[in-house]
Amino acid sequence: MSDAALRARAARVIPGGMWGHLNAARLPEGYPQFFARGEGGHVWDADGRRYVDLMCSWGPVVLGHRDPAVEAAAARQAAQGDCLNGPAPVMVELAERLVDRIAHADWAMFQKNGTDATTACVTIARAATGRRAILVARGSYHGAAPWCTPVPAGTTEADRANQLRFGYNDAASLRAAADAAGDDLAAIIVTAFRHDNVVDQELPDPAFARAAREICDRRGAALILDDVRAGFRLHRAGSWESVGVRPDLSAFSKAIANGHALAAVTGRDALRDAAASVFVTGSFWCSAVAMAAAVATLEEMDRRDAVARMDAMGLLLRAGLAERAAGFGVGLRQSGPPSMPLFLFEDDADFARGRAFCAAALEAGAYLHPRHNMFLCAAHGEDDIALVLDAAEAGFSAVRGLR
Amino acid sequence: MSDAALRARAARVIPGGMWGHLNAARLPEGYPQFFARGEGGHVWDADGRRYVDLMCSWGPVVLGHRDPAVEAAAARQAAQGDCLNGPAPVMVELAERLVDRIAHADWAMFQKNGTDATTACVTIARAATGRRAILVARGSYHGAAPWCTPVPAGTTEADRANQLRFGYNDAASLRAAADAAGDDLAAIIVTAFRHDNVVDQELPDPAFARAAREICDRRGAALILDDVRAGFRLHRAGSWESVGVRPDLSAFSKAIANGHALAAVTGRDALRDAAASVFVTGSFWCSAVAMAAAVATLEEMDRRDAVARMDAMGLLLRAGLAERAAGFGVGLRQSGPPSMPLFLFEDDADFARGRAFCAAALEAGAYLHPRHNMFLCAAHGEDDIALVLDAAEAGFSAVRGLR
Repeated sequence: MSDAALRARAARVIPGGMWGHLNAARLPEGYPQFFARGEGGHVWDADGRRYVDLMCSWGPVVLGHRDPAVEAAAARQAAQGDCLNGPAPVMVELAERLVDRIAHADWAMFQKNGTDATTACVTIARAATGRRAILVARGSYHGAAPWCTPVPAGTTEADRANQLRFGYNDAASLRAAADAAGDDLAAIIVTAFRHDNVVDQELPDPAFARAAREICDRRGAALILDDVRAGFRLHRAGSWESVGVRPDLSAFSKAIANGHALAAVTGRDALRDAAASVFVTGSFWCSAVAMAAAVATLEEMDRRDAVARMDAMGLLLRAGLAERAAGFGVGLRQSGPPSMPLFLFEDDADFARGRAFCAAALEAGAYLHPRHNMFLCAAHGEDDIALVLDAAEAGFSAVRGLR
Repeated sequence: MSDAALRARAARVIPGGMWGHLNAARLPEGYPQFFARGEGGHVWDADGRRYVDLMCSWGPVVLGHRDPAVEAAAARQAAQGDCLNGPAPVMVELAERLVDRIAHADWAMFQKNGTDATTACVTIARAATGRRAILVARGSYHGAAPWCTPVPAGTTEADRANQLRFGYNDAASLRAAADAAGDDLAAIIVTAFRHDNVVDQELPDPAFARAAREICDRRGAALILDDVRAGFRLHRAGSWESVGVRPDLSAFSKAIANGHALAAVTGRDALRDAAASVFVTGSFWCSAVAMAAAVATLEEMDRRDAVARMDAMGLLLRAGLAERAAGFGVGLRQSGPPSMPLFLFEDDADFARGRAFCAAALEAGAYLHPRHNMFLCAAHGEDDIALVLDAAEAGFSAVRGLR
């Protein structure tokens, strides 16, 4: 059934026809809402059109869609059992692997959503300290629960109580927020890098990261790294290894199981008792198939040197885009880690250029996003990057045509 | 690897060795923590011991573990794709089926956890009404987010702001709470029946259910049915069809996909715009495999007349237990729907009898719970009930030995 026909049916039985971050309504014309298939670095929409997939399901797909090694491990576990009266042995194996791998981690717990993990981190920090205040960067995305959703509809002021704001990479504002929290400071929560919606991405300033660590050490608060979006894509041991700062708690999800639903919190020994004292749980949090997929994902990422491969392809894409943008005389800003690229056009407040670019690139077979950071996966090869760059030429041509 | 060895390893890398509702620490001696396998109405622990499973993963397993029809549908979808850049066509099919089936439903949205669904209902109700106050029954479980977790560790008073309490099945207390909320009443949230921890279960009093409906109609508030635990087990069209009262919003999860991670909110047209206005989302909420599993689960439940079958087996169990309890001269209270039984012993404030009973029954091959309601599934047959009743004889004998 066609995307158009599916949209018509969806309009009757789903509010607005679709909801949340996968809603195609705000994407340029021509973008599909429904997807039929994924394989490696490619997706097919409901109309059968194939794209090089540079969203990778907004982060979960890191080795490639339907990765054979991951799916084989998932199938082996599914043949035994998935959701049981307790965890399967694979949960212990996964927790051990995270503790071995994640630089700060002495223990792990598992959830389903990234939001579950960030919320659990905040809860554990409050239980550990007996305090309430959490410092949160303005514009950072930590999930879609009432305490953190970027859209206030249906939430109350009480949902956002006990939060103080600072600016990402602004150590002075972080210190000021910590001072304002006074004796009530429970935690600082911070994303692995600045990947706020529709603004240039910023890598973490090491001085800012060290300031966060120092404030938490001095005040007995917990440093929470929200590594949901970036975790395992930038560094196998946790994203802030790149700046040499280790958090007390980390939230992971997205790429941890190559698309299987899983999240994890890792923490230091000092937070272990607090983690055991809180009641956070869910019907499917111990399901074994996603955990078997996670063990296989982490193993395969190491075996294929996935981080280095995604970096290399990301740099190839970045260089090729810069060259072509210059050739077309179009101002393009590229930001963030090479494997999680964002590009925004100069003089494009209404995103007309970004939309024209992406619509044309889509037509040429590249699924890009005009405002949100994108994601490479380890299945992308030089042929895929070449196709994206060809598609980008069509995009730049369309942008030039706007003038 | 043995359960004991797994526990020793888990103690090092998981806070308290395990967390949440699947933590075996509070179960009687002999209960396993880790499970190796499930099939039909049976589970095998890590030591290879087989049990008739009367917890069914605390609710998700409704057709039986590894149901062939459900797993085949899941595998067919997995061979195409799971977590993509948008939903697969199966999401529309599932939404249509829920709208067809659920008596009050004009639309559906999907999540991963029961808590996601109850939280989304509250958020949608607040968005629709522009009000804040939610009426919540004392002792009811609506999930493990900070606003509803039964253990306050790590939560703040603000997390529970804008909630007023009433007693389940107590219409007068419900009216008083509604009056106290005044013009700020956004919603009443109520479980399908009273299934609070460690107290006798109560089916909903139709007069109470009608009072809830009437209050919401008169005050323009939303009636939210938390059908996470009971949904699809008691009635194919929503659990309150039994009392003839239809909610405005329902939260489903647990049994919806026979163990695959999924939750759903269904609602009336009057709440559609509000549902489209809130931002609730998650990385895996549109994953297609769980939705294909849900379509197959609902279809198979109808085909096998699963509700009637679970009822029949539950009644057989209830009658057999009553007869044996009387034979041993042991006071046993059985409560709740036959397919979701709870039994508590008379004069058992410290649960010593319940624990002795369950420990002996476990030894004899029946996995029961001493304090929490249990769950039958459609794979349970008369042989399984006979085994449980034999095991119960061992249990009653152990209870009599306590005196």
